[in-house]
Amino acid sequence: MERLDALARHSDEPGKLTRLYLSAAHKAAAEILAGWMREAGLAVSIDALGTVVGRYESAIPGAPALLLGSHIDTVRDAGRYDGALGVIAGLVAVEELSKHRETLPFAIEVVAFGDEEGVRFPTTLTSSRALAGYFDPAILDVCDADGVSLRKALIAFGGDPAAIARAAKSREEVHAYIEVHIEQGPVLESANLPVGVVTAINGIRRLAVAVIGEAGHAGTVPMRLRRDALTAAAEMVLAVERVANSLPGVVATVGRMEVFPSAVNVIPGSVQFTIDVRSPEDTQRDAATEEITRSTRKIAADRQVELSISTTHEAPATACSPVMIDALSRAIKQLGFATRLLPSGAGHDAMAIAQLCPIGMLFVRCAGGISHNPKEAISLQDADICVRILLDFLRNFKPI
Amino acid sequence: MERLDALARHSDEPGKLTRLYLSAAHKAAAEILAGWMREAGLAVSIDALGTVVGRYESAIPGAPALLLGSHIDTVRDAGRYDGALGVIAGLVAVEELSKHRETLPFAIEVVAFGDEEGVRFPTTLTSSRALAGYFDPAILDVCDADGVSLRKALIAFGGDPAAIARAAKSREEVHAYIEVHIEQGPVLESANLPVGVVTAINGIRRLAVAVIGEAGHAGTVPMRLRRDALTAAAEMVLAVERVANSLPGVVATVGRMEVFPSAVNVIPGSVQFTIDVRSPEDTQRDAATEEITRSTRKIAADRQVELSISTTHEAPATACSPVMIDALSRAIKQLGFATRLLPSGAGHDAMAIAQLCPIGMLFVRCAGGISHNPKEAISLQDADICVRILLDFLRNFKPI
Repeated sequence: MERLDALARHSDEPGKLTRLYLSAAHKAAAEILAGWMREAGLAVSIDALGTVVGRYESAIPGAPALLLGSHIDTVRDAGRYDGALGVIAGLVAVEELSKHRETLPFAIEVVAFGDEEGVRFPTTLTSSRALAGYFDPAILDVCDADGVSLRKALIAFGGDPAAIARAAKSREEVHAYIEVHIEQGPVLESANLPVGVVTAINGIRRLAVAVIGEAGHAGTVPMRLRRDALTAAAEMVLAVERVANSLPGVVATVGRMEVFPSAVNVIPGSVQFTIDVRSPEDTQRDAATEEITRSTRKIAADRQVELSISTTHEAPATACSPVMIDALSRAIKQLGFATRLLPSGAGHDAMAIAQLCPIGMLFVRCAGGISHNPKEAISLQDADICVRILLDFLRNFKPI
Repeated sequence: MERLDALARHSDEPGKLTRLYLSAAHKAAAEILAGWMREAGLAVSIDALGTVVGRYESAIPGAPALLLGSHIDTVRDAGRYDGALGVIAGLVAVEELSKHRETLPFAIEVVAFGDEEGVRFPTTLTSSRALAGYFDPAILDVCDADGVSLRKALIAFGGDPAAIARAAKSREEVHAYIEVHIEQGPVLESANLPVGVVTAINGIRRLAVAVIGEAGHAGTVPMRLRRDALTAAAEMVLAVERVANSLPGVVATVGRMEVFPSAVNVIPGSVQFTIDVRSPEDTQRDAATEEITRSTRKIAADRQVELSISTTHEAPATACSPVMIDALSRAIKQLGFATRLLPSGAGHDAMAIAQLCPIGMLFVRCAGGISHNPKEAISLQDADICVRILLDFLRNFKPI
């Protein structure tokens, strides 16, 4: 917990925690972390994309590694646990092994990625993608809000755009990737459990919906002659909710809605809103999207309003490895806790690493499910539990 | 129709029709109108508030008058019929009597008020209130957006703040007030009728509603753990519609809605919206408001969201005189049309004059129910019909 506090002092904005990819604060955080890793006896390198890698050697030098980590960049005005917890938990677990000169039949590499939140550049998972071996060099030319290209920022950080290919691990070098992360949701808290095992990172589909009715005077148009875009949209919002409730694991949200012309005495002529549908299974997500589209079209037809629906974003679900799910579950049971399986609603570096090797994720309970907020909090006890689970997992992990 | 076109050329904004109270365009319109009145043989005066009054004397000089008119101010980028039609229809009807030297057992005064739309100053019905005898002198100190007080604007126009009391008519001087106005709604057009008789000007109640749920990540919070302010608000919007549909004559509208924080991937934490409830009967309006409030509270309780509801505006309904309703209906039948009774959803000068004497209103069909818009339109035929009805009404009106 002290280390998480120490990392949180490295920010690009005074008075709040904002640590953007390749910034001065990111550089400082990477260096302090590298120092802790060295003290713990790890062999440290910072790869071409700024990812800090600390290797704890196996009993058999040069053996394939189990990767353990998360990210150290943050959103603006962030909390101190999102990302950093996974890196520090991995470091503390390895430190414990190192302290007792306990070697395992595999190496452990603690990794700290720098670009998970995607705040500075219009791209995300850059550093974990590079490690997984599918970095797209075209991305080097994207620029931040000040017009600084990723290439330029990388060089200023001390990275090497020419050495990106060497940041990639091969399948033979790694066994699996385990990421500890705060849940960012209320499931574990409401179940009164310190940790849970992630089954899959949700697939996502986002829709933009426009409803066009007819604006009119709120006093002069009788109810039966109205084509109110907002009452139609209201029915659609409830249809989205109903569909999500009817399909296990699916969540669906209308997050934005704008009403036009937006005057107290004018019947809304048009409404625009967004729908965000997620599921750990793509077939469920697709079934939900289809049913939402069908219901929405029916409502529009019944109310004689025009409708346009378009997909604005889509990403498939990423399944966690059943072997990792079992191994993490066993470690949780070992500590005497019930095993709770849950999907991850948010994206993580594990999504990128899944292209390289099996992945597993351990979620840690966070207060009120709050994240991306300075109020983000975990308990010392839960932090301790997650490191103990990680240690038990490591001691029992059998490379396939 | 030519005169309505001629009046529409007097605007404060080039390229569109905007004629604000006491502006240069208002002054020009008042003068052109006074000229037409004089040509028609009326005795013209412009009162202290800028109201043009043209008197057509009775067979018995000095007899009480029937008032006929509406307003000549407009909203910004207005149509040419809202207000002006009532003034010109009255003038043309009296012109017809004058042409044939046809006198009646009562005088007729054609009145053109200047402040019905309430656009320039934060007040409305100033001129009709003065004529009805309940002008509030404190209003003289309100200012327009340029900081010009009503008092100053009145003096610049040629009005006389010291003579306002003299603009007031006494009950003995008037029989009744008849206002012809475009419907500003789609009822007559959908009923395929040129005119309709107003039963009452709707009473109104406006509510401001705030729903406070809990914001959260659209991916990480399961449906059953959400307190989504927008799904709650959507149910409330449909409750407002359902209540209005269940009570004859009531219209209710959610015109504004704002969602916070309004991001595609965030469950709405709060929603603010307005409710506008109108009815020709205050008891119905109150019953509707009560039922809406009850339903809204139940939805909030069921969904465990916080709710605040406050009344932001309230005005009672103004009933038209049953005698005037009957007399106008008879005149319509005389011309061979079906009599359609309907409430007025919008406010009119007749609301102010109702404090002085019985009122009656004749609505004229307007294209698509559109008003407050340059697309506002009536047909030449409907204009002719409304003047014929007015003439028949005048010839048959029996002062009580």
